[in-house]
Amino acid sequence: MTLSTPGPTLGVVGGGQLGRMLAEAAAPLGVEVVVADPTPDAPASPVSRDQVVGEFDDPETVRELAERADYLTFEIELADPDLLESVSEAFDVPVHPDPDTLRTIEDKLVQKRRLADAGVPVPEFRQVDTVDDLHAAGEELGYPLMLKARTGGYDGRGNVPVESPDHAAEALDAVGGDAMVEEFVDYQRELAVMGCQGGDKNDTFPVTETIHREEILRESVAPARADDAVRERAREVALDVLDVLDGRGVFGIELFQGPDDEILLNEIAPRPHNSGHWTIEGCHTSQFEQHVRAVTGRALGDTGQRAPTVSANILGDVDERQNATLRGEETLFETPRAHLHWYGKREVYRLRKMGHVTLVGENGAGADYLLDRVRDIRDGLTFAE
Amino acid sequence: MTLSTPGPTLGVVGGGQLGRMLAEAAAPLGVEVVVADPTPDAPASPVSRDQVVGEFDDPETVRELAERADYLTFEIELADPDLLESVSEAFDVPVHPDPDTLRTIEDKLVQKRRLADAGVPVPEFRQVDTVDDLHAAGEELGYPLMLKARTGGYDGRGNVPVESPDHAAEALDAVGGDAMVEEFVDYQRELAVMGCQGGDKNDTFPVTETIHREEILRESVAPARADDAVRERAREVALDVLDVLDGRGVFGIELFQGPDDEILLNEIAPRPHNSGHWTIEGCHTSQFEQHVRAVTGRALGDTGQRAPTVSANILGDVDERQNATLRGEETLFETPRAHLHWYGKREVYRLRKMGHVTLVGENGAGADYLLDRVRDIRDGLTFAE
Repeated sequence: MTLSTPGPTLGVVGGGQLGRMLAEAAAPLGVEVVVADPTPDAPASPVSRDQVVGEFDDPETVRELAERADYLTFEIELADPDLLESVSEAFDVPVHPDPDTLRTIEDKLVQKRRLADAGVPVPEFRQVDTVDDLHAAGEELGYPLMLKARTGGYDGRGNVPVESPDHAAEALDAVGGDAMVEEFVDYQRELAVMGCQGGDKNDTFPVTETIHREEILRESVAPARADDAVRERAREVALDVLDVLDGRGVFGIELFQGPDDEILLNEIAPRPHNSGHWTIEGCHTSQFEQHVRAVTGRALGDTGQRAPTVSANILGDVDERQNATLRGEETLFETPRAHLHWYGKREVYRLRKMGHVTLVGENGAGADYLLDRVRDIRDGLTFAE
Repeated sequence: MTLSTPGPTLGVVGGGQLGRMLAEAAAPLGVEVVVADPTPDAPASPVSRDQVVGEFDDPETVRELAERADYLTFEIELADPDLLESVSEAFDVPVHPDPDTLRTIEDKLVQKRRLADAGVPVPEFRQVDTVDDLHAAGEELGYPLMLKARTGGYDGRGNVPVESPDHAAEALDAVGGDAMVEEFVDYQRELAVMGCQGGDKNDTFPVTETIHREEILRESVAPARADDAVRERAREVALDVLDVLDGRGVFGIELFQGPDDEILLNEIAPRPHNSGHWTIEGCHTSQFEQHVRAVTGRALGDTGQRAPTVSANILGDVDERQNATLRGEETLFETPRAHLHWYGKREVYRLRKMGHVTLVGENGAGADYLLDRVRDIRDGLTFAE
């Protein structure tokens, strides 16, 4: 392996905040980033070598990206696995993770079946095409149920709770398409493990506790406030999940800690994930550097944790879509070991992810204390006038 | 203070590795960087919003930079203080540090006089315009002496040791211009302190030990392997130095630990400095983020150290100027907590700074051990075929 300038180029389908943080991590390694994204001057653009403007599944766009790249990856599930596969072959550019993994993951029903077959513990689930299917599932699994669109959902979009048989038709309409249904898991805690596949070894970052509201991640706490045994079990499940997936890269593995401390797989993202943003400051290697290392065939970095770390998302808090102006960042800058990550989006709307704040504790700092502090900082930020 | 996209723009005179690492640090803060540099596609360019191609002291170039910037700074002493001052006024764009500080520092004789007048301990020095001046200084201060060009020297260029009166004429020729001479300090150790001036407070990063060969920095060790009292004295001197300088920003303050543990000022750089590169991983705030914070009027960050840290420069090891291809980076990537910083220079020549490696230790890791390890990693890298 050698390094020259201009360096090896990583073509990334998607140029949002994940692409931006990938580019920030790639630069010190001498890896140049070109992103493909339909939004001109996408978040990743100002810190990347270049942007190809086009849709994620547009053949011309992805071909142009491949022509300029030595490696291909994606930071959004809207990437098209068939297109990536054919372009990778045509231009002889490796793509990681394997498009087949993306294909498996992008359909939540296929994902769950594959994982269940491999022995990964998952909530009970059923395919649901009709109201009758949903009623039958309700009788078997009981209510409430969680109805999920098989494809296209994220940040909770496409997930609809079903309280009783009476709501079945309405819920299916809301999901609008092929669906699956899962038993409701009365979890004690949501956990996430960033898993990474290198060429010859798999590894995980420390287990993260994730706190959602309205199905959107609000805060992450690392290490998770769970027993050692629970964290160890979460790590084992994550390693089992990695064994099912093909291709190098970082994977966001979302888990439930159930009522009896059992660990159940919730969902997988075949890319760096919001629940791993804290690794930028909290670990010796960030999930973004790790993804760049893995995809470009470099050895995986040390996933060890530097210190207790929490992060909080900065979400749009305005009702009307508008130009984004963040106010109140003084407290953030005045707080020792608080770090801002701004995503560079021009417009804000309700619950849009605009950035995040990470707060690193002294060794031994209590997670509850850090979580309170990072919430204070985050709550002091607003896009409202 | 508010934050929008496109964010506040920092115009940087100079687009070398310091500009590149400034841009890497600015992105998460939402601060966009435009650099001015005569080399097309300069190191900072691929990670910056844009580059203005032009000489550091070209009025048109610096005007164009100011037109696009909300704040101005410089990462190279070849910036022209008069030009910066007039452009800052004409475009009503603040420039930090104060151009007057650059003016003071860029002439080593003026720098030393100003510091000596303020009570900062400096080696004995004399102005030298002629061979007679140099002979007179030799009689007063003894030999060897260090003859220094008053302006334009860096990385030891422009510094010529004078062993005896016989070498005076030759040494003056080699320096070729206005000069000064300093007593030779038989130092135990070279130290450096990155100092920072915020709006209302000054601060320092932990004291670094710097190891030079052929007047070029090879390795940095932090904290320095010196007694607490010596480190404390170095910090005091650095704070005294900051009191003499005007304008916000980070300053590289190079010091000698003399034979009796006295601290003497060697030189100042009005910008982030090679001896502070280890702060990227080693401190809660890097010197680059700190400079961006200071120059854009944000509060200074926490300069606390995360763990024992060393770094080693990757220097050109080839005799002929040639396209740069680095070999042997596998060991670096396989070493836990070793970090590559590639500067993105296309060509390599002997002793050119091409990148650096930082190695972070476990808490309690011995500095000697870390230094050996980082040297091993660095020595495994080569540009030779």
